[in-house]
Amino acid sequence: MKTKDRIIAAACELFNEHGERAITTNHIASHLGISPGNLYYYFRNKEQIIRAIFDQYEEYLSAAYGPDNQTEGLMQDYLDKMFQGMWRFRFVYASLSDILARDPELHKRYLKSHHQVMNTAIENLQQMIDHGAMKIDPAMLTPFAEGIKMVVTFWISHLYTQNLDKPITESMVYQGVVQILAMFHGYITPQFKPEFDRIVAHYSDLASDISQPQAE
Amino acid sequence: MKTKDRIIAAACELFNEHGERAITTNHIASHLGISPGNLYYYFRNKEQIIRAIFDQYEEYLSAAYGPDNQTEGLMQDYLDKMFQGMWRFRFVYASLSDILARDPELHKRYLKSHHQVMNTAIENLQQMIDHGAMKIDPAMLTPFAEGIKMVVTFWISHLYTQNLDKPITESMVYQGVVQILAMFHGYITPQFKPEFDRIVAHYSDLASDISQPQAE
Repeated sequence: MKTKDRIIAAACELFNEHGERAITTNHIASHLGISPGNLYYYFRNKEQIIRAIFDQYEEYLSAAYGPDNQTEGLMQDYLDKMFQGMWRFRFVYASLSDILARDPELHKRYLKSHHQVMNTAIENLQQMIDHGAMKIDPAMLTPFAEGIKMVVTFWISHLYTQNLDKPITESMVYQGVVQILAMFHGYITPQFKPEFDRIVAHYSDLASDISQPQAE
Repeated sequence: MKTKDRIIAAACELFNEHGERAITTNHIASHLGISPGNLYYYFRNKEQIIRAIFDQYEEYLSAAYGPDNQTEGLMQDYLDKMFQGMWRFRFVYASLSDILARDPELHKRYLKSHHQVMNTAIENLQQMIDHGAMKIDPAMLTPFAEGIKMVVTFWISHLYTQNLDKPITESMVYQGVVQILAMFHGYITPQFKPEFDRIVAHYSDLASDISQPQAE
């Protein structure tokens, strides 16, 4: 891996583990065993590193939430990608208002990419409706999608408010997927119910994974 | 009003308007036309002022979300109190993870009071079920209440992520109430539907109040 990419990857890892506010460029350099000067050759400051991570985040969002032509497994595939983004970029979600308030340029990019995420979320929900998997008052479709997006966006912050000194684990993030499934519950059709129940059981298992620290 | 109470009220107002991070004890003293020394006589630092506001927040939560024996108007009464808390303490919601991370004592208090809020929320939902206003799979009651609590807790942060340089207005906060009503939609019984629709119309009006700046 090139030094530049190693810096981006290490920064993301350290931000995720210790919180973005607690980590300086010196921590990142020291973690990689390079000099601060070497890091400054690639990035002038922490904000530039955050922007580089944001590039990856945007790339991830457009790939994960892009238009999808499959029907079989659509819901599980979507939830897997949702989880992956929440876990991989959890510091972005944990410090979202901070990061956006500090960098108006990033804020603009955030608004744009999340507008696209909402549009494809609604398209995907419409696909589920068209295939008879769910039934919802058309006027409720957008507020429903917004509610789901809110849970996805703030689940990590929610975990931080709920846990005192406990690290955030993958199974805690999966609890967010289960929370999202609970929101679907009232709108699932009888014919999709067995598959839906299987999906709920799948993520409930992951959410209570006994290999995770908090259950030890 | 006593100087101590004036300091608390002014701090809450300034935090709400400019964000908690942007306001120092000097700003608060200057806003009140008192000397920093006079402020320090009552509060040693900003954290102490935040704790005093938190006392009021806790008091508000236990009064607003306490057990309620009325049935008529229960939902609207509950939503009004919800809105009032979101608006009055909006800086708490906007900077929640920051504030809690800085003060473990407050974090403990937050967890305790929000545990109580969840319990009474579930009791109130159960009351709506008992009176035939809503119908929900018993296993879904807690996740549903958690979903609502998440929207209430993070609606203000959501507004900050969605608005670039635009102040948060009351009608924007009412949009959160409408979002919560959208989550109820699938669980309302036919007999409660007319009253529910009236409530939705009421808050939709408030959410699009033309006297609010963003609609001008």
